[in-house]
Amino acid sequence: MSRIVIALALSGFSLVVAQSPGATPPQASSPAASVASLKQDLVIADRILFDEEFLDTAGHVSVRLAPDRFLMPWRRAPELIVAEDLMEYDLDGNVADAKGRPLILERFIHSEIYRARPDVRAIVHGHTPSLVMFSSSNIPLRPLFSGAGFIGQSVPAFKNGDAGGGVQSADLGRKLAEAMGKGGAVLMRGHGVVVAAPSLVALVQRAISLDTNAQLVARLLSMGDKEPMYIRPNPAGGAADAAGGAGGNNSREWEAYKRRAEMLMKRN
Amino acid sequence: MSRIVIALALSGFSLVVAQSPGATPPQASSPAASVASLKQDLVIADRILFDEEFLDTAGHVSVRLAPDRFLMPWRRAPELIVAEDLMEYDLDGNVADAKGRPLILERFIHSEIYRARPDVRAIVHGHTPSLVMFSSSNIPLRPLFSGAGFIGQSVPAFKNGDAGGGVQSADLGRKLAEAMGKGGAVLMRGHGVVVAAPSLVALVQRAISLDTNAQLVARLLSMGDKEPMYIRPNPAGGAADAAGGAGGNNSREWEAYKRRAEMLMKRN
Amino acid sequence: MSRIVIALALSGFSLVVAQSPGATPPQASSPAASVASLKQDLVIADRILFDEEFLDTAGHVSVRLAPDRFLMPWRRAPELIVAEDLMEYDLDGNVADAKGRPLILERFIHSEIYRARPDVRAIVHGHTPSLVMFSSSNIPLRPLFSGAGFIGQSVPAFKNGDAGGGVQSADLGRKLAEAMGKGGAVLMRGHGVVVAAPSLVALVQRAISLDTNAQLVARLLSMGDKEPMYIRPNPAGGAADAAGGAGGNNSREWEAYKRRAEMLMKRN
Amino acid sequence: MSRIVIALALSGFSLVVAQSPGATPPQASSPAASVASLKQDLVIADRILFDEEFLDTAGHVSVRLAPDRFLMPWRRAPELIVAEDLMEYDLDGNVADAKGRPLILERFIHSEIYRARPDVRAIVHGHTPSLVMFSSSNIPLRPLFSGAGFIGQSVPAFKNGDAGGGVQSADLGRKLAEAMGKGGAVLMRGHGVVVAAPSLVALVQRAISLDTNAQLVARLLSMGDKEPMYIRPNPAGGAADAAGGAGGNNSREWEAYKRRAEMLMKRN
Repeated sequence: MSRIVIALALSGFSLVVAQSPGATPPQASSPAASVASLKQDLVIADRILFDEEFLDTAGHVSVRLAPDRFLMPWRRAPELIVAEDLMEYDLDGNVADAKGRPLILERFIHSEIYRARPDVRAIVHGHTPSLVMFSSSNIPLRPLFSGAGFIGQSVPAFKNGDAGGGVQSADLGRKLAEAMGKGGAVLMRGHGVVVAAPSLVALVQRAISLDTNAQLVARLLSMGDKEPMYIRPNPAGGAADAAGGAGGNNSREWEAYKRRAEMLMKRN
Repeated sequence: MSRIVIALALSGFSLVVAQSPGATPPQASSPAASVASLKQDLVIADRILFDEEFLDTAGHVSVRLAPDRFLMPWRRAPELIVAEDLMEYDLDGNVADAKGRPLILERFIHSEIYRARPDVRAIVHGHTPSLVMFSSSNIPLRPLFSGAGFIGQSVPAFKNGDAGGGVQSADLGRKLAEAMGKGGAVLMRGHGVVVAAPSLVALVQRAISLDTNAQLVARLLSMGDKEPMYIRPNPAGGAADAAGGAGGNNSREWEAYKRRAEMLMKRN
Repeated sequence: MSRIVIALALSGFSLVVAQSPGATPPQASSPAASVASLKQDLVIADRILFDEEFLDTAGHVSVRLAPDRFLMPWRRAPELIVAEDLMEYDLDGNVADAKGRPLILERFIHSEIYRARPDVRAIVHGHTPSLVMFSSSNIPLRPLFSGAGFIGQSVPAFKNGDAGGGVQSADLGRKLAEAMGKGGAVLMRGHGVVVAAPSLVALVQRAISLDTNAQLVARLLSMGDKEPMYIRPNPAGGAADAAGGAGGNNSREWEAYKRRAEMLMKRN
Repeated sequence: MSRIVIALALSGFSLVVAQSPGATPPQASSPAASVASLKQDLVIADRILFDEEFLDTAGHVSVRLAPDRFLMPWRRAPELIVAEDLMEYDLDGNVADAKGRPLILERFIHSEIYRARPDVRAIVHGHTPSLVMFSSSNIPLRPLFSGAGFIGQSVPAFKNGDAGGGVQSADLGRKLAEAMGKGGAVLMRGHGVVVAAPSLVALVQRAISLDTNAQLVARLLSMGDKEPMYIRPNPAGGAADAAGGAGGNNSREWEAYKRRAEMLMKRN
């Protein structure tokens, strides 16, 4: 958890948090959500997913801004992202004016999923160890607890050659989106994972729950359990239950995440 | 352990700690215990169980205030709880005046166990990974070391459907209490765990010991040990031995927990 | 590692560290070692072993002061120990004037090993999870890397009944010392572990190495390795190699441990 | 991650970082790289590899300064290293003027690999638990994800006797270099690991990736996976993909590592 000390204690972020109204749940999925509000929530998502060790220095989170545009940083480590690092990418992976900053090479993961999935409003790509592990195995990753119900029967896998390479073209992005289908996650063989959700808050919960679920399935099988009691898939829900609550009360989690940031900022 | 930095370094808590007398063991089980003292200990229990990673942002701790009432927060993350967040719930899960704050949806876990178990004075519900794992397995969770003797032969499990849902009604609460029986813990299939104890101090020790015990049993079985040397159950005791001491000298642990909080508060 | 923030950032310790000469290796085994110097090193050992998660709130470290006396704290958590908490225990486990402070219940572990083993100058008793695990298994704990060579062919185990109880009498202490024999460690069934060494610096290295060795043996066996390549036991050495160095140059480690404390003290 | 608090928050390091130009990627492999720049990057590598728990108090990192000379500290813990601790070693392991400071006993690991491998510009030797584990097993350590492609088909192992001893002579160094061959890593039976790379940035990525790869292979095998889907080896590359990116854009990682140091320095 101390990663948050590193993830959040950087100048620039304080302003973002300062703009944030107390514990009001973000309206990422509301048409009224302002760009500033979306940027603020995206920065929090980046920092929290780094803090929770879902992201390393090379993962990335994005949020849909409009049917044909999404917000995502330039090629910078999640632990360093501030609002000013966010740019508008279109569905071809282009940015009108990047101000000389390099684009994320795997931006096509995001652009092609947003193109294929109108219901998706937020996406994260990471190289989370527990999920890289399942991406390299034929053992299916199935939902073990309520928070992971969103993955359905099991998480599908996309294979880009046999060297564990990433997705750096629109063509590969389309194939990845096809592999994901209508689900909320897809594994990338020998490389990582992609999680998609209807909002940034749901995305953070789904990502954390999927990582935990992978670790628990691995440990159960290691114990010699031949028949883990997997739960009934709940593709529509899941995220809402990720924190053990119900009815999608994400505000409890979001307040905690924001407060962690505010408290830590005070210490730097 | 650094979670405590996040868990405790929030304004408001300093006052609570300030009210606390040095290393005097809390008198949670004494009829003379004041409400203020119980609130103070409940806040410490919430922060410590978050710090020890037994609780995530959605767990909750409660303490019995009277035969028909108990203290518990409104629906807020344990890492943020201060005395002012605590409200008096009755055994039907009602609060006279919640001041517009949402109640914990799974409050019936607490109300029904307090109703069925006069001997129980403190309860915690969490989604602790190692215990969610055992909740999804037919492999019994048995006591491996002194601190976990309180669980008896093995921890019973309660199943609420097949989607890993929580307990959000008095009826489900009653069934959960029945599943727990006279023991100190019960697993919730695909969801989490509930631990009960005669005091808040014993609760914290039991919760931490149960988590450790689950991790060790899982690792022993993974090693290929066909016959782990489980200990003789000690339902009445256990908590007292959780820290390796004896005779229930919980003050050593409580002093350490309070000091962690005080020291960390100084740094913010 | 962040446990050190909690373990060391307490007033009183700064003075102890202040007394300490830069990176000069402690002379724990030298007859010229002053009581003040031994107390300083004992405090550092307590804090570092807590920081390294070998000790919980209930473990204890002691150092021999004379053939018939040793220094050890009253019943207080290692993370809180300062020089003023240390008292002189004799080989019957008595303290001339404890100033009303409770003695450690398991003091007989120390007194009887010092009585039986003139070569032992430092002892630690902990409830380290990885070692509690091996204490409850018939799978032998054998040395896998250089730092653990001191354990010999495997770590013997002492069983005190079948409830995982501790050692709280001279009689049990004698039996524990017999079980340890001439070795450097002994497991306590369902309870914990005891490590002994010729100096406090060697003790810290041996304790950390034994914990790591237990974790690695468990993981190797879990992988399905039927024939781990254990090393040739090196009862006399071991400690010196614990840090991968040789010739017993413990100063490198001790300087680092002291500096961690000094740096962290500055932050509080 | 909190180890970085300990690793970097020491006076002296701030100056090193201060010398460092924003997020400019280090030119370790450029003939124009100044000694000061190499020293700065070596200090960062030492601190980050300690922070990432690849190094304990006894590991060491070196960088080639010229065909017949390399920079490495005197025998001091990586968490304490500052530029002033770095000395010029020749390929016989000698230092012109050590100013009375003890040399690293295992310096021959570095000198002999630099002698045998003109392509190697940076080397690290550590006692990383997951790699010590594989060093004691006949189970091959093969590449599971893109970042570990640099190890080839599997990591070779060097055995120095049966006591897990280190490499403290030129003769043993030569044999270790032979065991490594043309690869990027070699295991040392019962002792540790050595990783080599064309630059310090690549070295840090390779070391972190190899540790992660070892942990994931161990967990996959523990799950009972009989046929993990290892990737196609990529000896030349690997490092560039370690962070999940491509084309060797190491600047993203290096900026993050530098910023972690700068931020933490501000807090002390």
